[in-house]
Amino acid sequence: MQIHDISMQISPDMPVYKGREEKRPRFKTVATHQDGSAHETEITLNLHTGTHLDAPLHMLAEGSDISYLDGKELIAPCQVFDLTSVEDKITAADLVDLELKPNHYYLLKTRNSVPDFLNKHPEEFIYLAESGAEVIAAANPIGVGIDSLGIERVQPEHPTHKTLLGNGIIIIEGLRLYEIEAGDYKLILAPLKIAGVEGSPARAFLLEEDNQ
Amino acid sequence: MQIHDISMQISPDMPVYKGREEKRPRFKTVATHQDGSAHETEITLNLHTGTHLDAPLHMLAEGSDISYLDGKELIAPCQVFDLTSVEDKITAADLVDLELKPNHYYLLKTRNSVPDFLNKHPEEFIYLAESGAEVIAAANPIGVGIDSLGIERVQPEHPTHKTLLGNGIIIIEGLRLYEIEAGDYKLILAPLKIAGVEGSPARAFLLEEDNQ
Ligand SMILES: [Zn+2]
Ligand SMILES: [Zn+2]
Repeated sequence: MQIHDISMQISPDMPVYKGREEKRPRFKTVATHQDGSAHETEITLNLHTGTHLDAPLHMLAEGSDISYLDGKELIAPCQVFDLTSVEDKITAADLVDLELKPNHYYLLKTRNSVPDFLNKHPEEFIYLAESGAEVIAAANPIGVGIDSLGIERVQPEHPTHKTLLGNGIIIIEGLRLYEIEAGDYKLILAPLKIAGVEGSPARAFLLEEDNQ
Repeated sequence: MQIHDISMQISPDMPVYKGREEKRPRFKTVATHQDGSAHETEITLNLHTGTHLDAPLHMLAEGSDISYLDGKELIAPCQVFDLTSVEDKITAADLVDLELKPNHYYLLKTRNSVPDFLNKHPEEFIYLAESGAEVIAAANPIGVGIDSLGIERVQPEHPTHKTLLGNGIIIIEGLRLYEIEAGDYKLILAPLKIAGVEGSPARAFLLEEDNQ
């Protein structure tokens, strides 16, 4: 079995949503070996940092927080789709020819995954348009993931988020899919177990069965 | 397949190491629906909060940081041992009769896992004594986990941490094993992918094959 780590590294110079400095993680060393202590760090993280999940509460005032995910939705079959030729946004037309299997995760690989793309173009990431979200919601996935730090932009009222979260579809943002080929995998999705909040940073792995 | 979540929930009233208030996670709501915005939270976390890993850098000035873990050590066979009859500390004598398999994780279930034990007895958790760490290191595991927020206490110079980390053995602290029976499982261990630091909060699952 091959294990692919599709998580973004959390560091002071990582890409942040639209390049906004207030969303950058902050690291503080609180104890060191020089003090005769163990080395210890404290980190301040916006919960939408790097690879992370959005729970319904992020966009819907009465929505569930992230704690409703207890395990079985977090280890599940997954399809990776190659959408690297898409410019600007993923619409219904980009998705109609795909075989979207129900009860899977769909991971949308775009040019956002090209190394340094998000740092160079923080405001122009490829996103999932409302019409694309409707096609996806109709296919009944467990969740949908993308390689930008936001699954949408420039859509007033956030219809992509609301279409997905309103249908109980988990949103994963900030995936790193550059080295991943389109195809079928098993996804392991591991947000931190945080009480009462609208999202969480996560580690994500794709497992690929060996075919020999 | 059954999935057991063995992660501690991160919340303002969770147990923290020795009850020290400066180690308590802090939550800040940075945007709300009332403002016409998405709901967004920022969290400040000591990296040794709840279920977490210690990397060698935590105790050894020249030790690796947490980023050396890239995947294959994070999904691995695991043995859970019932040590709930142990009082005070786990010594070599408590471990000699166990069949410790090489290249596994060993999870040590103690009375720390009893709900509310850690909040009621923050300074008197059951820990792994130096002699126990030596028995474990000799068995060549991938890692060792315990259900307290520290794998040792009251041992000057931290010989348990140093014996384990010095032998390349991953330390997991803060597991929740109350509902887990002793036996063999597959462990999925998912720390955040953070650059250059001595540990990370993690989500952890045990997978159990169905036997029917
Ligand atoms: Zn988000
Ligand atoms: Zn620790």
